[in-house]
Amino acid sequence: MTVELEPRAVRGFRFAGVSAGFKNAPGALDLGLIVADRPAQAAAVFSANRVKAAPLYVTMDRVKTGRLQAVVANSGCANSFTGKPGLQLARESCAEVARLVGCAPELVVPSSTGVIGHLYDLNKFKAGAADAVAKLSEDGLGDFARAIMTTDTRPKTASTTFKLGRTTITLTGAAKGVGMLSPKMATMLSYIVTDAEAGHIALKRSLKAALPTSFNAITVDGDMSTNDTVILMASGAAGNGALGGRDVAVLDRAVKEVSEALARELVRDGEGATKLVTVEVRGARTLADAERVARQISNSLLVKTAFFGCDPNVGRILMAAGSSGAYVESERLMLWIGGVKVAMGGRLLTDALAEAGKAMRASEFEVRLDLRVGKASAKILTCDLSYDYVRINAEYTT
Amino acid sequence: MTVELEPRAVRGFRFAGVSAGFKNAPGALDLGLIVADRPAQAAAVFSANRVKAAPLYVTMDRVKTGRLQAVVANSGCANSFTGKPGLQLARESCAEVARLVGCAPELVVPSSTGVIGHLYDLNKFKAGAADAVAKLSEDGLGDFARAIMTTDTRPKTASTTFKLGRTTITLTGAAKGVGMLSPKMATMLSYIVTDAEAGHIALKRSLKAALPTSFNAITVDGDMSTNDTVILMASGAAGNGALGGRDVAVLDRAVKEVSEALARELVRDGEGATKLVTVEVRGARTLADAERVARQISNSLLVKTAFFGCDPNVGRILMAAGSSGAYVESERLMLWIGGVKVAMGGRLLTDALAEAGKAMRASEFEVRLDLRVGKASAKILTCDLSYDYVRINAEYTT
Repeated sequence: MTVELEPRAVRGFRFAGVSAGFKNAPGALDLGLIVADRPAQAAAVFSANRVKAAPLYVTMDRVKTGRLQAVVANSGCANSFTGKPGLQLARESCAEVARLVGCAPELVVPSSTGVIGHLYDLNKFKAGAADAVAKLSEDGLGDFARAIMTTDTRPKTASTTFKLGRTTITLTGAAKGVGMLSPKMATMLSYIVTDAEAGHIALKRSLKAALPTSFNAITVDGDMSTNDTVILMASGAAGNGALGGRDVAVLDRAVKEVSEALARELVRDGEGATKLVTVEVRGARTLADAERVARQISNSLLVKTAFFGCDPNVGRILMAAGSSGAYVESERLMLWIGGVKVAMGGRLLTDALAEAGKAMRASEFEVRLDLRVGKASAKILTCDLSYDYVRINAEYTT
Repeated sequence: MTVELEPRAVRGFRFAGVSAGFKNAPGALDLGLIVADRPAQAAAVFSANRVKAAPLYVTMDRVKTGRLQAVVANSGCANSFTGKPGLQLARESCAEVARLVGCAPELVVPSSTGVIGHLYDLNKFKAGAADAVAKLSEDGLGDFARAIMTTDTRPKTASTTFKLGRTTITLTGAAKGVGMLSPKMATMLSYIVTDAEAGHIALKRSLKAALPTSFNAITVDGDMSTNDTVILMASGAAGNGALGGRDVAVLDRAVKEVSEALARELVRDGEGATKLVTVEVRGARTLADAERVARQISNSLLVKTAFFGCDPNVGRILMAAGSSGAYVESERLMLWIGGVKVAMGGRLLTDALAEAGKAMRASEFEVRLDLRVGKASAKILTCDLSYDYVRINAEYTT
């Protein structure tokens, strides 16, 4: 199953991305719309943050039916921590889209991303939504992906095709990151659609199965957004008939691979990131221990600044491993940076450091830590911490 | 009880700081020595990191007797993750100091701070130790404080005097930070000495009682060092006699206040820090919840970069609170930045933001969050995250 980092047309869906004037830059796309020709089967996962944004409450409630027809997403304003007026704004926005599209308001869900604590202008939204509905097209996913960007430097899309029986199925998705990105659950916003015939229960299972290695296995800054949402919708327009047991496995794999590709693109475009680093922990006593160590390393500022400086700073990586709370024995652990073994037997392999430093100059490399006290493993994708992360986040005004 | 940020002479102790050549800068002080005239009562606390440096194992073992006569601390090399050769180096270093001072080797403890994974040169150490012993003086704590600095921009000392009965007691301390500084336990290195007559059990209790509001209540980057050590020694030279119940309380308070002053100085000099921020959380359901929220806010990169940018980014603070795992209700919480109320009733008080932004321009300000779901509270001292943090840590080579 090949995954391409391109949008694809998917039977049964149309997309648009327009400028509604929410972003300061004139003409910047900031309102995205996905509309299914008829109610689609749908599943979604959300931020585990206790402070959730208004659109999440609306989406969580509506997706319970397993059916959605439209998703409207804006950037430039998160509509989070906005109280009852925020909830009302989210519902009125959906009602307007429902009116324009000609479906029930309960089949429309909203997403918002941007600054927390502010409402967007409903009149701007209405004008933008009308424009978006007019521009809906099968090839509009690229524009949609642009419309949901905040500090992202590029749109993120991924697509694959596969067979269910004799029917060719397309699965395509768009996502945005790129700060406030934490591995505890999903990324900020991600939408995946397919023309497969698949019920919402199967979709929910596919989506949940894809999370551990995709949206839950990435980190940029260890902060968890209030707006994170991943939605998966299936139009059924491919007419593949009821899913057999083998079909389910194929669909699961497609959702997983597209999710992983999107997650990878999110970290690669992490705020200020210059390097994509895979942190793999093996030989932990428990899965929880493996994840704890991988996350502690992936989120350590000292480790991330060392990545940025191409500094094979073994001490910082081991410091992070030791402070994770996981069971670790200094004497047993073995560490590789960019494929170069740099520590074992409780000692640094100083002769290997120059070569490890060279490997770190690549835009992608791997840190592998074998704790050698058990059999559990975990993998997290992270990025380095650069001056630009500080610049972007010190200057991003409320 | 007034605490001054100055070193003081303390009866029964002499101090020195010399250059042994461990640091690259020629002539930079990098070997510190504290010697008691006779074995002193002592207590210590250590890093909770599972990967501990060699000197910690030696110190942990020796302080169990409750008696120490000398502390030798070097900067420029952490002697951490150095295996058995590291342990041997730490023991040989102590033996050399014991020989020069004329005490049992078991009464000497080592500390090291600097780069992880390397050994220092024992011959350089021996020459430096001889120089330090020759230079021991009652007024040498300032030099000692300089000798333990790494990326610290200035030495950190704090002193107080108080009465036990009719006897005037002096308590003085030196500490160093300033990166890899996490609130989970102690700071990197801190030494506090007093001329009070006090047993090691009382000292241990005083030290443990002081931790929650001092060395355990600070964070620079959320990373926990492998070398953190706090040692408290009492020479008894003041001759105040056995401690009464009220004396214990006075001693406790002195240890607490000097510890808090030193901890505060550590954060103020945090790597790249331009602002000292007190994060106070009130009204939590449990103490654990209060601490979780205070730490999540204090360690959030997005919050810390907003501090640096003087951006009253309420959303990031609430995002951190919500993702801490603590019980939080959006609608109930109230937030103040620099004394200005900026959120309540599930909404941002947008009119107040400009004033809050102005308050953030000060070099010190407070963030106070009242969760209003219980009675527990916690306070953490943190700093902002600046370009300089990235510069210091990307360029600090192994």
